[in-house]
Amino acid sequence: MRIAAYRDGGRVRTGLVAPDLQSILPLALTDEQHARGALAVVEMLAEGRSLPGTGAPVAIGAVELLAPIPQPRRNIFCVGKNYHAHAKEFAGSGFDSSAKSGGEIPQHPIIFTKVPECVVGPAQDIVIPAAVSTAIDYEAELAVVIGHGGKGIRKADAMKHVWGYTIVNDVTARDWQSRHQQWDMGKSFDTFCPMGPWLVSADECDGAATRVRCWVNGELRQDAQTPDLIFDIPTLIETLSAGITLYPGDIIATGTPVGVGIGFNPPKYLKAGDVVKVEIDGIGVLENPVR
Amino acid sequence: MRIAAYRDGGRVRTGLVAPDLQSILPLALTDEQHARGALAVVEMLAEGRSLPGTGAPVAIGAVELLAPIPQPRRNIFCVGKNYHAHAKEFAGSGFDSSAKSGGEIPQHPIIFTKVPECVVGPAQDIVIPAAVSTAIDYEAELAVVIGHGGKGIRKADAMKHVWGYTIVNDVTARDWQSRHQQWDMGKSFDTFCPMGPWLVSADECDGAATRVRCWVNGELRQDAQTPDLIFDIPTLIETLSAGITLYPGDIIATGTPVGVGIGFNPPKYLKAGDVVKVEIDGIGVLENPVR
Repeated sequence: MRIAAYRDGGRVRTGLVAPDLQSILPLALTDEQHARGALAVVEMLAEGRSLPGTGAPVAIGAVELLAPIPQPRRNIFCVGKNYHAHAKEFAGSGFDSSAKSGGEIPQHPIIFTKVPECVVGPAQDIVIPAAVSTAIDYEAELAVVIGHGGKGIRKADAMKHVWGYTIVNDVTARDWQSRHQQWDMGKSFDTFCPMGPWLVSADECDGAATRVRCWVNGELRQDAQTPDLIFDIPTLIETLSAGITLYPGDIIATGTPVGVGIGFNPPKYLKAGDVVKVEIDGIGVLENPVR
Repeated sequence: MRIAAYRDGGRVRTGLVAPDLQSILPLALTDEQHARGALAVVEMLAEGRSLPGTGAPVAIGAVELLAPIPQPRRNIFCVGKNYHAHAKEFAGSGFDSSAKSGGEIPQHPIIFTKVPECVVGPAQDIVIPAAVSTAIDYEAELAVVIGHGGKGIRKADAMKHVWGYTIVNDVTARDWQSRHQQWDMGKSFDTFCPMGPWLVSADECDGAATRVRCWVNGELRQDAQTPDLIFDIPTLIETLSAGITLYPGDIIATGTPVGVGIGFNPPKYLKAGDVVKVEIDGIGVLENPVR
């Protein structure tokens, strides 16, 4: 199942994407539920309620796709330095001092957050806040969406708590990330979390064995396999839920592969006019212009 | 004006605290608004609507006070190492490696977050997650609540965006805070954000010139003046709003003074049976048992 949120004639709707990916069948939801996108559906299913019926299909080309969860229920959990080669490029960039002493590969998951309001949909602009930072970088990531919540979830049970997957671009102001030590602020600027194109259920996509690619202006920059994650999805869920109760709809962005802008010398930061395209096999394509 | 949220006969209500602090006048709100506590009132006022009328007073002693904002609209922004003496004690504890090279006083605000769901009310338990961590520490803090939101707010205008103040205890699992590098997780365990006893409007409390004290089992551990903040409230608001749009009801915990448990040798961490009491002049007292 693929759940999409979209704007159709000024109204926000939520629906199921048809198997041919050419149309969406709107779900019979209240306006308030529609506005919450896939979050309303995931919560409904977590409560044991059945999916409502659907209306007449609308052509995908005739509507504006939004982020599948336009307003997450709380900050998005994100994982830092979770691919070996990326952790090394990050160290090599001189970004972090811990790396200088050989600590480039984290021994424990590094978790930070992005505010819910920085989420934007497919095709929406990533806005460079030129007065504030021009060291703006892309980070293509597989995002896990929690179905059934819980606390103290063990690795062996973790995948039962995964509803499905989407794509996020964990856009980052590198100077703010470095200068302020804790990363949340430089990760949370307005428009810094493109998400989409839809949410794919776990029975239709294996997040543990897929491919993440990112192009800037058509140039392939990132290309990795999710089995290369340092901390796999069950480990991330076990770690996060050890002290924090997880809820249906919680989002965990699993980290980005090697090939980000700061990894180049000199860095290849984003600039107005660029286009960033992320593709994850089994999910789809998320492409956002930069302005 | 002091806004309190409370449970009265099983129902969550929101009201104005009477000047003698002995009773609460419930506001004429819908059940849904009541459940959102002071957040509903702050949003209402930010939209230019006037405060609704009040009903018959209830004695404070007859109800259970809740956190004034029981469910913040997104993660709480928190400031790290924002008092000189605390930054030094933190460095002295051997906690962070940056301090070893003389970097104990931050040059820029350190911002991390706590999840909304870790908020608990006055008198509710702080729960030690014994299977996960026993290095649980208290941090008494003045919390700023935003009234009118905005972006790119300048220091000179920042105080116009402050609706008022409350108290938070930024409870922290020190081992998680250290081991995972980014702090959000070790700061966000369930029950790790006692908040209260109410929200006081800025015309009745000067957050820039008040006193923060914390006692554990009656022993005074923290005692500081907010003019000693390294980054004052206008600087925090200017910094946060540079790239992130702030919203009515956003909460900024301004950092904790010297005297936390990790500052002692050996550390004085919290244990079951302890009672942590925080008092901020002009606001009131927040006291929570530990179990």
